[in-house]
Amino acid sequence: MSQHLQNEIAALKEKIIYMGTEVEDRVYRATVSLINRNEKMAQAVLNGDHEIDQLEVTIEEDCLKLLALYQPVANDLRFIISVLKINSDLERVGDLAVGIAERSSYLIDQPQVMIPFDMSAMMQTVESMLTRSIEALVNQDVQKAYRVRSEDDRVDAMNREMYALVKNELAKDPDHINILLQNLSISRHLERIADHASNIAEDVIYMVNAHIVRHSPETFEE
Amino acid sequence: MSQHLQNEIAALKEKIIYMGTEVEDRVYRATVSLINRNEKMAQAVLNGDHEIDQLEVTIEEDCLKLLALYQPVANDLRFIISVLKINSDLERVGDLAVGIAERSSYLIDQPQVMIPFDMSAMMQTVESMLTRSIEALVNQDVQKAYRVRSEDDRVDAMNREMYALVKNELAKDPDHINILLQNLSISRHLERIADHASNIAEDVIYMVNAHIVRHSPETFEE
Repeated sequence: MSQHLQNEIAALKEKIIYMGTEVEDRVYRATVSLINRNEKMAQAVLNGDHEIDQLEVTIEEDCLKLLALYQPVANDLRFIISVLKINSDLERVGDLAVGIAERSSYLIDQPQVMIPFDMSAMMQTVESMLTRSIEALVNQDVQKAYRVRSEDDRVDAMNREMYALVKNELAKDPDHINILLQNLSISRHLERIADHASNIAEDVIYMVNAHIVRHSPETFEE
Repeated sequence: MSQHLQNEIAALKEKIIYMGTEVEDRVYRATVSLINRNEKMAQAVLNGDHEIDQLEVTIEEDCLKLLALYQPVANDLRFIISVLKINSDLERVGDLAVGIAERSSYLIDQPQVMIPFDMSAMMQTVESMLTRSIEALVNQDVQKAYRVRSEDDRVDAMNREMYALVKNELAKDPDHINILLQNLSISRHLERIADHASNIAEDVIYMVNAHIVRHSPETFEE
């Protein structure tokens, strides 16, 4: 294996980690903007998506360049293919953070409607899944990746709970339909971010173990 | 370029086209099950997702095998990477077809609630985008791919229209909240299928032109 390729792979790893922390930051700001009703924070997410899109294109071009120039095999090939896929998941998480920030920006100007749902808890669970999926990537930590993946069902359950609650509130409080629907939409965005964190975790498992775990039961298989 | 690799690439092309037509078929059945209130058709989609998942894993393994064994460059490399990405989009479209079939299966047993929205027109537009994105893949037709991509905004507008209509109906007809929300959810699923068709179109453009068009304006650039 050439030293050049190893240097390029180290640089690629740094870039995808940077992309991961940038996207994490967007999700964090989008959720905090809602909880703290902070319009400035929501706007920062809305204005910053272009950088994520650019990063995605750069990382993808890097991957393709490495494949073409070095024709890597085994671990190196798996690493590059996994980065290619994780990159695409992270970009979509960035879009979902924008979606949350848009809804937050709308809700900030509206009266606060009480829904008996712990949105902060859902946000924290999803953010933690995303953070740990990136840590699993950085440290090639398969056990951590399996744990991320096993939490996806819990987030799905939270989203179903939110749906049931919003449905009840819509019947009781038809004056606040839009506010209720926008809150439901945020919960659904979070649920999709958790899906992407699971995808990233699965790609880490593949990268380390050369074993595709998608569509197999969500238990720890090591 | 080895004849072996060319044969393998031809076989891979057949597989991804097969995957495309299978997924198209799922979307078609899911939407027809709703329009014709046909529970059997909805169930067929629900029971058939495992095949799509299996196909995705097989195609991904094939791509990785070709990359490792033949270390392809230029056109062949781009073709394989594009198939890898299109494969993943198609699998997600399959999941969205299941989501529509689940909602359809629920709605079939409920009273019909009139929403002044042409759901059939939205379905046809989205199905046509998906079909043409796969045709663009088969024929490496960049012009067709650009046209698919340019239609995404129209579907987004349809989804926004549906949201506004459902919001109005929720205020007028609180007895049918669940039915209305499930219809809105179907519109959102269709909108996401259109997004994936656009992604596929963008990958076809990359495959043919070696030019990443993501995040650039949605106009015909040839």
